[in-house]
Amino acid sequence: MKLTVEQLAKRLGAELVNTGGQAQGKISAIGPVEAAGENDITFVKSDKHIAALIKSRAAAAIVQKSIEGYNGAQLIVKNVDTALIEVLNIFAPELKKPTREIDPSARLGKNVKLAEDISIEPNAVIDDNVEIGENSIIGSGCKIGENTKIGKNCQLDSNVVIHHNCQIGNNVIIQANSTIGSTGFGYSFIDGTHKLIPHNGGVVIEDFVEIGANCCIDRAKFGNTIIGAGTKIDNLVQIAHNVVIGKCCLIAGQVGISGSCKLGDGVVLGGQVGLADNIEIGDGTMISAQAGVANNIEAGRQVAWTPAIDKRKAFRIVSSLMRLPKMAEQFKQMVNRIEELEKDK
Amino acid sequence: MKLTVEQLAKRLGAELVNTGGQAQGKISAIGPVEAAGENDITFVKSDKHIAALIKSRAAAAIVQKSIEGYNGAQLIVKNVDTALIEVLNIFAPELKKPTREIDPSARLGKNVKLAEDISIEPNAVIDDNVEIGENSIIGSGCKIGENTKIGKNCQLDSNVVIHHNCQIGNNVIIQANSTIGSTGFGYSFIDGTHKLIPHNGGVVIEDFVEIGANCCIDRAKFGNTIIGAGTKIDNLVQIAHNVVIGKCCLIAGQVGISGSCKLGDGVVLGGQVGLADNIEIGDGTMISAQAGVANNIEAGRQVAWTPAIDKRKAFRIVSSLMRLPKMAEQFKQMVNRIEELEKDK
Amino acid sequence: MKLTVEQLAKRLGAELVNTGGQAQGKISAIGPVEAAGENDITFVKSDKHIAALIKSRAAAAIVQKSIEGYNGAQLIVKNVDTALIEVLNIFAPELKKPTREIDPSARLGKNVKLAEDISIEPNAVIDDNVEIGENSIIGSGCKIGENTKIGKNCQLDSNVVIHHNCQIGNNVIIQANSTIGSTGFGYSFIDGTHKLIPHNGGVVIEDFVEIGANCCIDRAKFGNTIIGAGTKIDNLVQIAHNVVIGKCCLIAGQVGISGSCKLGDGVVLGGQVGLADNIEIGDGTMISAQAGVANNIEAGRQVAWTPAIDKRKAFRIVSSLMRLPKMAEQFKQMVNRIEELEKDK
Repeated sequence: MKLTVEQLAKRLGAELVNTGGQAQGKISAIGPVEAAGENDITFVKSDKHIAALIKSRAAAAIVQKSIEGYNGAQLIVKNVDTALIEVLNIFAPELKKPTREIDPSARLGKNVKLAEDISIEPNAVIDDNVEIGENSIIGSGCKIGENTKIGKNCQLDSNVVIHHNCQIGNNVIIQANSTIGSTGFGYSFIDGTHKLIPHNGGVVIEDFVEIGANCCIDRAKFGNTIIGAGTKIDNLVQIAHNVVIGKCCLIAGQVGISGSCKLGDGVVLGGQVGLADNIEIGDGTMISAQAGVANNIEAGRQVAWTPAIDKRKAFRIVSSLMRLPKMAEQFKQMVNRIEELEKDK
Repeated sequence: MKLTVEQLAKRLGAELVNTGGQAQGKISAIGPVEAAGENDITFVKSDKHIAALIKSRAAAAIVQKSIEGYNGAQLIVKNVDTALIEVLNIFAPELKKPTREIDPSARLGKNVKLAEDISIEPNAVIDDNVEIGENSIIGSGCKIGENTKIGKNCQLDSNVVIHHNCQIGNNVIIQANSTIGSTGFGYSFIDGTHKLIPHNGGVVIEDFVEIGANCCIDRAKFGNTIIGAGTKIDNLVQIAHNVVIGKCCLIAGQVGISGSCKLGDGVVLGGQVGLADNIEIGDGTMISAQAGVANNIEAGRQVAWTPAIDKRKAFRIVSSLMRLPKMAEQFKQMVNRIEELEKDK
Repeated sequence: MKLTVEQLAKRLGAELVNTGGQAQGKISAIGPVEAAGENDITFVKSDKHIAALIKSRAAAAIVQKSIEGYNGAQLIVKNVDTALIEVLNIFAPELKKPTREIDPSARLGKNVKLAEDISIEPNAVIDDNVEIGENSIIGSGCKIGENTKIGKNCQLDSNVVIHHNCQIGNNVIIQANSTIGSTGFGYSFIDGTHKLIPHNGGVVIEDFVEIGANCCIDRAKFGNTIIGAGTKIDNLVQIAHNVVIGKCCLIAGQVGISGSCKLGDGVVLGGQVGLADNIEIGDGTMISAQAGVANNIEAGRQVAWTPAIDKRKAFRIVSSLMRLPKMAEQFKQMVNRIEELEKDK
C-alpha cells in the first residue's frame, strides 16, 4: 500500500499544511519519530517529541497543532491516537483472510451449533453442545469444552484451551496458549491430605474483552469467574477462581489475582502486581507495578509498594529509606552528644 | 440433579434440624451464603458467616453446630469441608464420560504400552516406549516424549507437553498448556559464549500431585527434578532443574523456584514467591506471598518480605517504615534541640 | 554407554592421575559430588566441593588440579565446565533421531520453502510463504504464521506458536508452549473505550537465542521486537512489544520486560525482575532477582531491590531496616532524655 500525503490527509480527514513540496511523494509506512525514514509518515503525541520531529527525515507527520521548524508535510488532526490507529490499519501487512471454513481435520462433537462465516483451523477440537457465533475464528489446536458458548467476531489464536461451561461474549480476543476455565487452586485439608474442592462453576468473559498469550483464568467453585466488558488483559496473567473483574480494566503482564477478589470498573493494575484473596478494589483504582495488595482499596485511589499504600506516601517512605543508613549514622552521633550533655549536667 | 433436604441429609449422614417446613423442597445447587437462593443449599465454615446466614434466603445450610435465628433447614455434620465436597460432587454439572478409547487421530510411537480404559483424545502424540496406566486421560494436542511413564488415573488436560524420560505417578492431574521436562536454564560461560549444559536427568512427579495450567517443570541435569506425593501446584508456576519438593506442599500461582532448591514436606508458598537457587526450606515452612528468599529457612518458620525474614519481625519493620517519614522529620527537630542545649552549655 | 576411566580421559584430553587401580572400571554416568556412586564420574568446579569429593564414592572426578585425599581416579582438565558438557553428552540418554521428514498430518500452506533435512512433527501447521532452513525441527502442534522465516538448525518444541512476519535466526531453540509474535498490550483510550493499536511490526530472534517454555514475546507496533544473538531466556518470561535486547543476555524465569525497553549486551536479569516501559539498561548490567526497575541504568552497574538501586546501597538500606524497630524504640528514649535536659536548663 502506497499513498501520497494528500491521499492520506483525505483518508484521515486531516488539514494538510506546510507540504514542503512533498504532497505527491508516496508514503508506504509509519514509524516513530526517531526511526521514520524519507518515505514514512510519523506522529507527535506529546510535546516532548517536537524536538525530535524537527530533526526527523520523515516525509510527513500527524500532529494536533502545527509545529514550527519541521520541514515535512503536517497532517493536523483532532485526535492523534485515532489517526494513528487508522494509518496503522492502512499500512497493515497484507495477510490472507480468515478461511470462513471448517478445516476437515477439526473435530466437532455432537450438537455443535455454528453460525455463518466461522473459521475453524486445523486440529481444533470442539466438544458437544458448543455454540459459536458468526465470524468467529478458532485457531489451530484449540480445544473448546462441552457446553461452552462463544459469541460472534471472536478470535482465538492457536492452542487456546477453553474448558466446559464457559461463556465468551462477542468481539473477544484470546491469544495463543491461554487457558480459560481451568480448575482453581482450592483444597480442603481433610484427614491429613489436601482434597480438591470440585469447581462446579464456569467463566464468563463479556464483550470486547481481550486476553493476552499464556494467561490462565480459573473457573469458579460456584457461580462464575467474571471478566467485565471491555477489560484488557496482557500476557501471562493469573486470574483465580471466583474473581469478578469490572468493565474496562487494564491488567498488565504477569499480574496475579487471587481467589474471590472483586475489582470495580476502570481498575488499572501494573505489571507483576499481586492481589491476596477476597479483597475488593474500588472503581478507577490504579495499582503500580509489582505492588502487593493485602487489603481492600477504595475507589479512585492510587497505590504502590508491598504492602500497597497510598502512592505519594510510598514515595515519601522510599525517599526516607534512601537516607536511612545515613540517618542511622547520625543517630549514633546524637546519642553521644546527648550523653555528653548529660555528663555536664 | 434435584434432591430434597431430607435426601441430602441422608447422603451426607447429617443430623437434620429446624427444617422450617422445607424438608420436602427440592435443592438443585449449592452456593456461598451471600449468593445462595431459595432453591439452594449453603454452608457455614466459620463464625464470621453466621450473621450472613441468618439473612440468607438459602433453603438449607450445612453447619457444624446449630445456628440460632436461621429459618432454613440445618444439616449438622462433623466436618463441613467434607460435606461441602460431597454436595459439590452431587450437584456437579453433567459432562460426558471419558471416551476410554484411543482417538484415531492420536499418534502412537513404537512399543507404547497402554493399560485398560485409557482415553487418548484427538491429535495427542505419544512417542516410543511410553507407558500409560489404567483409566488415565491424555488430552487433545498433548505430547508425551520417549520413555516417559504415566501412572493410572491420571488426567492430562489439552496441550500438555511432557518430554522424554519423565515419570508421572498415579492420580496425577496436569492442567492445560503445562510443560514438564523442559530443559533447564543452565549455561557455562566458555570462550565468550554461554553453552547450554546438557540435561541428562528427568522429572519425577509422585502420586496425587496436581499441577495447574501453564506451569513449567524443568528436567534435571543429573538425576531428577522431584515433586513429592500429594503436593499441589497452582497456575503459571516455574520449577527449575534439580529442584526437590517434599510431600503435601502447597505452591500458589506464579511462584518461581530456582535450580536445586530443596523443599521439605508440607511447605506452603504464597503467590509470586521467589526462591533463589540452592536453598533449603524446612518442613512446614510458610512463606508469604511475593516474598523473596535468598537463604535457607528452618522447619516450621513463617517468613515474609524481600529479603524474607520472620513474619512477625517483617510486620514490625513495616510498621516502623510507615512512620519513617514522620520520624525523619522529628529527627531533624531533635538535632536542633540538641544544638540549642549545646549552645547553652 | 560405558567407558573406562582411561577411555574417558582420552576423550576429554585429560591428564589421568592417581587411578587407584580403577582405570579399567566401567563408568556409565556422571553425577554431582554428593550423589555420585561407585560407577559414576563426578566433578569439582570450586574449592568448596573438595571436602565432599574426599568422602565421595565416585570412581573418578574431573578436576582442574590434583586433589589430595581423594581415592578415585582424577582427570585433570583445563576447563571443568567444558569437560562436564562433553561428559554429559557422552552419557546422554539415547533417544531417537529427528525424523527429517514431514509428517503427513502436518499442514503446509502455499509457497512454503523447506530446506533439506527438516523434521516437521504431527499436526504442525505451517502457513503460506513460510521458509524453514536445513536441519530445523518443528514440534508437534506448532503453528507458524504467514511469511515467517526460520533459519537452520532450529528446534521448536511442541505447541510453540510463532505468528506471521517473524524472523528466527539459525540455531535457535524455543521450548514448548511459548508464543512468539503475539499482539502487544497497546491501547489508546478513545471515546471512552480502549482501542487496540494495530501491531504492524514483527519479532526478530537472532542466531543462537534460546527461549524457555511458556514464554511470550510480543510483536512490535512498528519495526521489530528484537532478541540479540546468543541471548538466553528462561521459562515464563514476558517480553513486550518493541523491546530490543542486546547480545548474550541472560534472562531468568518469570522476568517481565515492558514495552520499548532497550537492553544492551551481556545484561543479566534475575528471576521475577520487572522493568517499566521505555527504559534503557546499559551493557553488562546485573539486576538481582525480584528487582523493580523504573529508570535507566548505566552500563556495568549492579542493582537490586524495588525501586532498584545500587546493590551495595540496597544491602546497607536493608541492614538498617532490620534495625529500624529497635532504632524507633531508642528514638523515643532519646526524646525523653532531651526533654529532661531541656527541663534542667
